[in-house]
Amino acid sequence: MRDVAVIGVGMQKWGELWAKSIRDIWVESALMAMDDAGVDHIDSMYVGSMSPGLFSSQEHLESLLADYLGQHHVPATRVESACASGGLAFRLAWMEVASGLSDVVLASGVEKMTDVSGSEATHALATAADMKWEGMSGVTFPGLYAMMAVAHMHKYGTTRQQLAQVAVKNHENGSKNPRAQFPMRITVEDVIHSVQVADPLNILDCSPITDGAAAVILVPADQVKKYKKPGVKVTGSGHATDTIALHSREDLAAIRAAAIAAEGAYRMAGKTPKDIDFAEVHDCFTIAEILISEALGFFEPGQGGPAAEAGWTALGGRIPINPSGGLKSKGHPVGATGVAQIVEITEQLRGECGPRQVKGARVGLAQNMGGSGGSCLVHILEVM
Amino acid sequence: MRDVAVIGVGMQKWGELWAKSIRDIWVESALMAMDDAGVDHIDSMYVGSMSPGLFSSQEHLESLLADYLGQHHVPATRVESACASGGLAFRLAWMEVASGLSDVVLASGVEKMTDVSGSEATHALATAADMKWEGMSGVTFPGLYAMMAVAHMHKYGTTRQQLAQVAVKNHENGSKNPRAQFPMRITVEDVIHSVQVADPLNILDCSPITDGAAAVILVPADQVKKYKKPGVKVTGSGHATDTIALHSREDLAAIRAAAIAAEGAYRMAGKTPKDIDFAEVHDCFTIAEILISEALGFFEPGQGGPAAEAGWTALGGRIPINPSGGLKSKGHPVGATGVAQIVEITEQLRGECGPRQVKGARVGLAQNMGGSGGSCLVHILEVM
Repeated sequence: MRDVAVIGVGMQKWGELWAKSIRDIWVESALMAMDDAGVDHIDSMYVGSMSPGLFSSQEHLESLLADYLGQHHVPATRVESACASGGLAFRLAWMEVASGLSDVVLASGVEKMTDVSGSEATHALATAADMKWEGMSGVTFPGLYAMMAVAHMHKYGTTRQQLAQVAVKNHENGSKNPRAQFPMRITVEDVIHSVQVADPLNILDCSPITDGAAAVILVPADQVKKYKKPGVKVTGSGHATDTIALHSREDLAAIRAAAIAAEGAYRMAGKTPKDIDFAEVHDCFTIAEILISEALGFFEPGQGGPAAEAGWTALGGRIPINPSGGLKSKGHPVGATGVAQIVEITEQLRGECGPRQVKGARVGLAQNMGGSGGSCLVHILEVM
Repeated sequence: MRDVAVIGVGMQKWGELWAKSIRDIWVESALMAMDDAGVDHIDSMYVGSMSPGLFSSQEHLESLLADYLGQHHVPATRVESACASGGLAFRLAWMEVASGLSDVVLASGVEKMTDVSGSEATHALATAADMKWEGMSGVTFPGLYAMMAVAHMHKYGTTRQQLAQVAVKNHENGSKNPRAQFPMRITVEDVIHSVQVADPLNILDCSPITDGAAAVILVPADQVKKYKKPGVKVTGSGHATDTIALHSREDLAAIRAAAIAAEGAYRMAGKTPKDIDFAEVHDCFTIAEILISEALGFFEPGQGGPAAEAGWTALGGRIPINPSGGLKSKGHPVGATGVAQIVEITEQLRGECGPRQVKGARVGLAQNMGGSGGSCLVHILEVM
């Protein structure tokens, strides 16, 4: 398999993009990525989107978008793995370039979530859980992650304040990201006194409903000199699944799919957790970032909470996590999130991130997750 | 890239499978494919499904199904390209084995369409059209294909009887297929006097609503001797898109994406239309089979209708099309259809098809299509 590099990225400011349709926001980000790379043609494209059927009454999105991008007749593929759809689109685009089948492949993600009512959005997101055993009983994602939070608190003594600290740190980072949906700074007190969603999670523990898209261009690593910007090499890719139903898991206080996907990515890259300079992880809820920081091997099981509280995951800390602001502050248009992580890592490794730049960053890791950990993608990218 | 072969296939009798859930029917077909190949483990899996969100209120299907198959933690990917989702799943599984990333990959498709009302099913299917410009104006797929039929009749003189002959031939073939949903024989008169759906298409010109799944196992071609059954080699894969909206096409009487995908597959396989012994094509409506038989190069533009009428596409004809009975008689659980075509071609090339066997079949072609031709996959398979 060939080595692969990212040579272009694109992403607009995320939020409630009332004036734009799903095709508008996707084309906007795809054109930004093509412009960034300096290409006017792609060989193939992947679109990660969780549920354009339920959110936008539009399936068959990949052909529609290829047409609207002006890339008539190119092979186009939509992939879905709930909130890990973007990371999965990136993996398949990487595979296509690595295989030798194509030389210029677009990986992208999109979700337009604000055109439906709150209850419709909640239903659409709930379809990422096991609808027969979880959704039909009335549990939705805040409830599922609340159960995982309670399990982690019970097993390891993780505190309410430690959960809150994740949100505070991510909003601090997001305040330095011009594309973040909610760039306001918040305090631990704000989180603890915000309205409760599912005990112990409050509204400021939860990532928002967002409209947004993100796109990147991948090429063979030995061809990067042909393009405008420095390439960033994809050195590891890992993908794993787990039961999507929480009740079938051995341990509610750990995310096994993330550990297995990370193991695959570390092995391929020849790296260990100690080699990672920073990470973008799937903080759909504050507890998720703590669970993931343990699954990725940055901290021992149970040490994710104390590490967040000690500032180890802040900018300038031992292992900065979510310098972009994460899903919490930047926003979470579910299908786009995994690709936006690659956008941030690429820009960090190019040294383009201004006030939120991770100093000396040479190796970054992206972790994208579906459901309550039913699927997980981990990618490692490095300065070439 | 490595050569790839199919070494196992699985598919149940299709129909209205009231007693089984989407997970049941998928696991059933996947286990049949694994048993046929003689494997108890897969490295990775792909699931083509058009809209489990709208039909079954369940996204994140790939992780759910990996779990229910007992293949815990394997990388699992759902792909969607409307009714071409199955063909796309097969292409990606082929790519993963060809790239060297994995050795035993399951490609599958599933749709459970009868658990919703007729209007809900019609809405779900309509999301494969351009909802902004087509669906919102009230047009659904019978209407779109009716426009293509009228265009073809106007341009080439294709007749009502020629359309009907496609249905008659496919039901004749389906009567010899124990897995077909509608195995009854019909006559041209039956078709012409059946209830009108969208002029000139009647109910017997339309493929049905179906529950079903299909699965195949792919391995490197140089490893086929390790498995129970003879391997069938995948020698060509082509993939193309077009506008999903009909109004943007240059010609309503041709399916350009099919011609481009076929060109790609023929080039990769080093074959021409004359080398193909039989084909499974996407006859979602009778006019579709005529359009496709021309796009694939079996007949000149405008000659698809006369060819059907002359019996050239029947079993024993010059180029048998849809020996399985096609979507028309076998059924059309949209995400499963593209994989079921591969099942039929594999069994034909193994000589396992009894009364519907294409004599001396050594090269088969599968053509799977999304929407009104907005996406298309073409694969060529050969006896090893």
